[in-house]
Amino acid sequence: MNLNPDFIADHNAAGQTQHQRKLSPWTDSVEQAEAVIQKLVDFQIAIPSWALGTGGTRFGRFPGGGEPRSLEEKIADVGLLHALNRASGAISLHIPWDIPTDPQATKQLAASYGLAFDAVNSNTFQDQPGEPGDSQLSYKFGSLQHVDPAVRRQAIDHNIEVIRHGVSLGSKALTVWLSDGSCFPGQLNFRKAFERTLSSLQDIYAALPDDWKVFVEYKAFEPNFYSMTVGDWGSSYLYANKLGPKAYTLVDLGHHLPNANIEQIVAILLNEGKLGGFHFNDSKYGDDDLTAGSIKPYQLFLIFNELIDGMDARQMNHAQDLGWMIDASHNVKDPLEDLLQSVEAIQLAYAQALLVDRAALDEARDANDVVRAQEILQDAFRTDVRPLVAEARLRAGGALNPLALFRQLTVRQQLIGERGAKTVATGL
Amino acid sequence: MNLNPDFIADHNAAGQTQHQRKLSPWTDSVEQAEAVIQKLVDFQIAIPSWALGTGGTRFGRFPGGGEPRSLEEKIADVGLLHALNRASGAISLHIPWDIPTDPQATKQLAASYGLAFDAVNSNTFQDQPGEPGDSQLSYKFGSLQHVDPAVRRQAIDHNIEVIRHGVSLGSKALTVWLSDGSCFPGQLNFRKAFERTLSSLQDIYAALPDDWKVFVEYKAFEPNFYSMTVGDWGSSYLYANKLGPKAYTLVDLGHHLPNANIEQIVAILLNEGKLGGFHFNDSKYGDDDLTAGSIKPYQLFLIFNELIDGMDARQMNHAQDLGWMIDASHNVKDPLEDLLQSVEAIQLAYAQALLVDRAALDEARDANDVVRAQEILQDAFRTDVRPLVAEARLRAGGALNPLALFRQLTVRQQLIGERGAKTVATGL
Amino acid sequence: MNLNPDFIADHNAAGQTQHQRKLSPWTDSVEQAEAVIQKLVDFQIAIPSWALGTGGTRFGRFPGGGEPRSLEEKIADVGLLHALNRASGAISLHIPWDIPTDPQATKQLAASYGLAFDAVNSNTFQDQPGEPGDSQLSYKFGSLQHVDPAVRRQAIDHNIEVIRHGVSLGSKALTVWLSDGSCFPGQLNFRKAFERTLSSLQDIYAALPDDWKVFVEYKAFEPNFYSMTVGDWGSSYLYANKLGPKAYTLVDLGHHLPNANIEQIVAILLNEGKLGGFHFNDSKYGDDDLTAGSIKPYQLFLIFNELIDGMDARQMNHAQDLGWMIDASHNVKDPLEDLLQSVEAIQLAYAQALLVDRAALDEARDANDVVRAQEILQDAFRTDVRPLVAEARLRAGGALNPLALFRQLTVRQQLIGERGAKTVATGL
Amino acid sequence: MNLNPDFIADHNAAGQTQHQRKLSPWTDSVEQAEAVIQKLVDFQIAIPSWALGTGGTRFGRFPGGGEPRSLEEKIADVGLLHALNRASGAISLHIPWDIPTDPQATKQLAASYGLAFDAVNSNTFQDQPGEPGDSQLSYKFGSLQHVDPAVRRQAIDHNIEVIRHGVSLGSKALTVWLSDGSCFPGQLNFRKAFERTLSSLQDIYAALPDDWKVFVEYKAFEPNFYSMTVGDWGSSYLYANKLGPKAYTLVDLGHHLPNANIEQIVAILLNEGKLGGFHFNDSKYGDDDLTAGSIKPYQLFLIFNELIDGMDARQMNHAQDLGWMIDASHNVKDPLEDLLQSVEAIQLAYAQALLVDRAALDEARDANDVVRAQEILQDAFRTDVRPLVAEARLRAGGALNPLALFRQLTVRQQLIGERGAKTVATGL
Repeated sequence: MNLNPDFIADHNAAGQTQHQRKLSPWTDSVEQAEAVIQKLVDFQIAIPSWALGTGGTRFGRFPGGGEPRSLEEKIADVGLLHALNRASGAISLHIPWDIPTDPQATKQLAASYGLAFDAVNSNTFQDQPGEPGDSQLSYKFGSLQHVDPAVRRQAIDHNIEVIRHGVSLGSKALTVWLSDGSCFPGQLNFRKAFERTLSSLQDIYAALPDDWKVFVEYKAFEPNFYSMTVGDWGSSYLYANKLGPKAYTLVDLGHHLPNANIEQIVAILLNEGKLGGFHFNDSKYGDDDLTAGSIKPYQLFLIFNELIDGMDARQMNHAQDLGWMIDASHNVKDPLEDLLQSVEAIQLAYAQALLVDRAALDEARDANDVVRAQEILQDAFRTDVRPLVAEARLRAGGALNPLALFRQLTVRQQLIGERGAKTVATGL
Repeated sequence: MNLNPDFIADHNAAGQTQHQRKLSPWTDSVEQAEAVIQKLVDFQIAIPSWALGTGGTRFGRFPGGGEPRSLEEKIADVGLLHALNRASGAISLHIPWDIPTDPQATKQLAASYGLAFDAVNSNTFQDQPGEPGDSQLSYKFGSLQHVDPAVRRQAIDHNIEVIRHGVSLGSKALTVWLSDGSCFPGQLNFRKAFERTLSSLQDIYAALPDDWKVFVEYKAFEPNFYSMTVGDWGSSYLYANKLGPKAYTLVDLGHHLPNANIEQIVAILLNEGKLGGFHFNDSKYGDDDLTAGSIKPYQLFLIFNELIDGMDARQMNHAQDLGWMIDASHNVKDPLEDLLQSVEAIQLAYAQALLVDRAALDEARDANDVVRAQEILQDAFRTDVRPLVAEARLRAGGALNPLALFRQLTVRQQLIGERGAKTVATGL
Repeated sequence: MNLNPDFIADHNAAGQTQHQRKLSPWTDSVEQAEAVIQKLVDFQIAIPSWALGTGGTRFGRFPGGGEPRSLEEKIADVGLLHALNRASGAISLHIPWDIPTDPQATKQLAASYGLAFDAVNSNTFQDQPGEPGDSQLSYKFGSLQHVDPAVRRQAIDHNIEVIRHGVSLGSKALTVWLSDGSCFPGQLNFRKAFERTLSSLQDIYAALPDDWKVFVEYKAFEPNFYSMTVGDWGSSYLYANKLGPKAYTLVDLGHHLPNANIEQIVAILLNEGKLGGFHFNDSKYGDDDLTAGSIKPYQLFLIFNELIDGMDARQMNHAQDLGWMIDASHNVKDPLEDLLQSVEAIQLAYAQALLVDRAALDEARDANDVVRAQEILQDAFRTDVRPLVAEARLRAGGALNPLALFRQLTVRQQLIGERGAKTVATGL
Repeated sequence: MNLNPDFIADHNAAGQTQHQRKLSPWTDSVEQAEAVIQKLVDFQIAIPSWALGTGGTRFGRFPGGGEPRSLEEKIADVGLLHALNRASGAISLHIPWDIPTDPQATKQLAASYGLAFDAVNSNTFQDQPGEPGDSQLSYKFGSLQHVDPAVRRQAIDHNIEVIRHGVSLGSKALTVWLSDGSCFPGQLNFRKAFERTLSSLQDIYAALPDDWKVFVEYKAFEPNFYSMTVGDWGSSYLYANKLGPKAYTLVDLGHHLPNANIEQIVAILLNEGKLGGFHFNDSKYGDDDLTAGSIKPYQLFLIFNELIDGMDARQMNHAQDLGWMIDASHNVKDPLEDLLQSVEAIQLAYAQALLVDRAALDEARDANDVVRAQEILQDAFRTDVRPLVAEARLRAGGALNPLALFRQLTVRQQLIGERGAKTVATGL
């Protein structure tokens, strides 16, 4: 379905008075307001193609209806989100699920929604029995780490194929998340697994176009439950550093051991020039893949606080120089509603972090004034920045309240009407 | 396939000399040796029907071959294990996957392998679209906790149906594991969810035969990632206590928060007369469902140390008065080999715990002699009790080395020959 | 030092215009505003006497200056806090550090600051060599759990003595936090330790006045590193339930295993009528005893969300029917500043939780509308309620910005002038 | 006190028959037995000077008696341990507590006990008010990370001073453990703290003799509870790598987040040529500093399994090319008894790891035979290697059973007689 722009205009007109009342204290008296709004307008968060359908666990999956059945429908779903919030202007594809048969047409379709193609993702954590020629060798015992060079070769070739698809669509980055690891003590020689994985990554790196990046994602556990071969930021850094200047670490918020200080990891990687991008989500226990900001919103704010500090110190462009993507699993919510919630939570955290009085913070730190430093961050976090985010949407052509409009327009019911109640998004 | 007893006899004959050399220091000079061997002979660990096939994660599943395609083949597989180790003399069924169409025939089949039917397990964590009449209402938002009384009724009826199947096979216990909970703050009213769940459990309890037990299993997280309605032993105890004398808590080793002292939980529950049984497995991160004893063998020993202390204090029968069951997921191993490893690890831990010098331990504790108390436990744990476990198998008619014989007899290859390479065990 | 009320008046006058500008959107258009303000006025959080000095770790302590050297100076410090925020109207004493020599005079002194005496705390986690007659027997291996009845007797008598001191000052509750447990497997018989501890608690319970409560605090680990004899809420509940209707569980936010869902524990205990009170603080790793709300402010809000739901369901009085206390350790901040920050964070969380639209939340839950339920909580949490808390302070006679005024008045410098730069608060 | 060698001879004579009975199956039929015994003879574990007295927590300390009051008495205590087990042939000093006033005499004293001086340790986590000239500037807000260059300078100079003391005694390594970090979000600019710390370390590195190493120890949390500036192996690696070839990472087993796979970290660091040494202890919750092998003995074995694999791959000398040290805190045990237990547990793990059939393991791994790989490690771990360790002690001149002899000789009582019952070891 396509969203009739009139609907958004009507929605905004209806909410304009109330919005202005909340916004005016900002525009009237807060000097940074305009700058923050502009940065919010510029800030886009990519939507992964696999997050458009209902997710599940090993215990089951409870699908909803109207899920996208094809790449075209996935693009349409992201287009819908972007029409509503004007902050989801990119889609991140997952191969082999999203292979474009006619890249030019696919690019045009995406462009018609105002969407770019973000990082492309390879998949070597599953066998693909349905795809002839694909995965004739099994990844049961790993892919890039595998003891069998033929399996490694297959996995390397798959990644190079993914790059090729990405090139055809205008992507500029490859994300490599490996489930490689081991489930039991003894299964793996850690040392050799590291060397084999590095060697495989080097082969992939060699196939990377000059203007591309490769993101080496790490994860502490799952689906391997004893060791992961790219298990923490230290490992990812080692790989990225050995690969070369186009290789970076990608941080997924759910991929850490309990209590990890993720904001510090972000700061260190940025300082080393090796932070590549982000997978946003939230979690309480493991890689729970919950809506961004739904469990630990202060942590999300603190991460943005480090991102801004580090990017500004390196004169990086907030909107362009890191990869921003959501990676969540929507088990009990409408995926599109969940994504709207995630994007908004990320924008709020970004806006609050932009409000931090950095000069005062520096001063407090230089004086070891811990109380004051804490107050400065809390002041920003306790501020209600929803009017700024709404204004940014408004200026960019989106809806004041995307979620409310989504419901009011009965989008899901229409999608069910178009696609059926029993659809299953490809790749899930 | 049936195991030709001659194979076991041959295997044992071939290994007898070496076995006797290792055993004789025990039988020659260790007074308790005979008693320990006899207790090992008596000790049986139930095998769950769902652990006979390859398990998986939400990221994928890499099936092996020759997996059981029916209840009869599952019984045959457990029969095979039991023939090899004489310690797996019971099977635990999961409804709706294992509904017996002819209970008498099923009982006879099991009896032909020397197997009893352990606790039956209900399943309200998945919808069963294929089963007409079943799960017409969805468990997406819980079962016994559900806000809709019709869903609760369906789940209650399912549990009562499971009891009925269990009665028909001679089971004496129902295990209720609930995935009920919530994924996001706000989703659930904890208080009301508790009350609804309690009320549902009371309806199930009312349908329990006089000589049955119901086990209320708890789990800290997964598949719900914010709250679980039976989330810890304290909650399970509250439910079991309110239900009545036939209700008990069931402990699954993988269902705890990081660093939990499970052996202390076991001791407390036993002391309250509310420990019902065990699901054995091992884990490093969460409910990893790895082979028992593969990650934290000392913890397994310490748990048995508490079990023996507590059961002896209450004059309970080790072999009969608690439910012993494995609950593991075999993602990268042959399921039958993995189960043989789990049973052996449990037997080793039990044997070591039987060797603890309890009089000396009491004395050390009464003197606050921490060093000595630690030494006493370590002495038992550092002892190589494999000859005792092998001897128990030998006396019970099993194989000296079940795993070696399993491989030597190329059991898996034969199962693949019988059942095919692409089978998928029902329920996975 | 006493705070000249004129200072507060001047401070408030100076900030009045700005405050009114922020407050007026509330009082103009938010119906609940007045009710929330009144509840905030009524809500008092007790300050523990040991939190008035610089805390430390086993690695060291870096004291500040001007710390209170006597019970009288501790009362004066809390009086100062209360004068500033009008929300710290009680002090919680720790015996043997705070034994009142002239209880009547002590009561009068406290009353002169508007302070009541909250729960009294016993101490059996240290030996007190300096106190003749006290601790002649060591608590090295526990107190109420000790194998030696004489040690248990000493610890019981100490607790009864603490009650006596509390009675003399008008306290109405005893908090028992036990460090009892074990550091090594084998050290303790969990079962017997439980029974001995219960028996000791029963002796203390017997000495409790009719209108008193006893709070049984639990803690997962530290200072014992293998087991704690009151280690989780389940254990605490068992003790409290066996003791009788005057016994309750006390929840300290830092006393849990990683990732515990504390808000659910609170809801369950409230529902059982066994929640007694709270020790507020925050933590990232263990019992870090950081400023309330400084690490996980959303968790603090969610806890208050459950408290309000549960207390309202039982028609409890928010301000009176549970014990509210801070328990933090100020290692790198001025203790008084830190306490001001903690009290404010608690008030903000309480105010936000009061704003939750409970009727809408019930409706969303009944419809399994997870998205909406999350939105309702987030709406409340994202609201800037600082004007309401400031207004509550103003109406109660406190300062619009206590921390700013504390600094402006150079309170710490004056305390150093009065008490010296090298003071060490008793009990630290 | 000095241990009369006759006592050891008598003890060994009394136990010889029983020992031989247990040893002979090894020497009769296990080919590797001799090689393992020899490696055990060569393997020495350094004892830190601060572990010779009773440790404590922030909640208290319960000292025993007869603790060493001086550097000389500390050396005597380690000498005693070494006389008993012949595996504690080095002492690791902590400055400023152990400053040698006459290094030559100190060296001679140590030599008289057969002791070498292991890594020297600096201390910038406490202020030392008693030491004139030392710590006039406070480390409350860090040392090498401090915003004030004068504090950094003081800390750098202290480390250089520690090197100087080490040189005077024949040490060859400096261990830098930093408590630097922050307790609250906002307190620290992570980026700048990293850079300042690196710069300080570079100054120290510049003062390192050519044949010295510097070990950069990391720790996840405590005493700072929000961030640690050298918080994980990745950070430590970054520092060590930037410093140069003499800088290495030091792994303390208790310094990780929950569930960390330490054996994998060890393998990666070894593979990078950046593993410098070890602090052995055990823990359940955090940096609990419990006796090595008392909680997770299988983990200790797995670590040694990686150490042997990695050191052999790099042709390193097990006994010499890494720093082996205990770092434990004895809160409820006699420190010397506890250290004897730790050393034995380390030796057992080392011996078991030496027994791993590495050729078979390689083969199993190359075949993805997870079951077999697990069996190979478990076979080694389930083997009772106590006779090998006892034999190694015997051959080296130590006691068959050091702990039993320690008690039989009433060593502690004699130390109390010599030193008094109320001594407190310096530095605690």
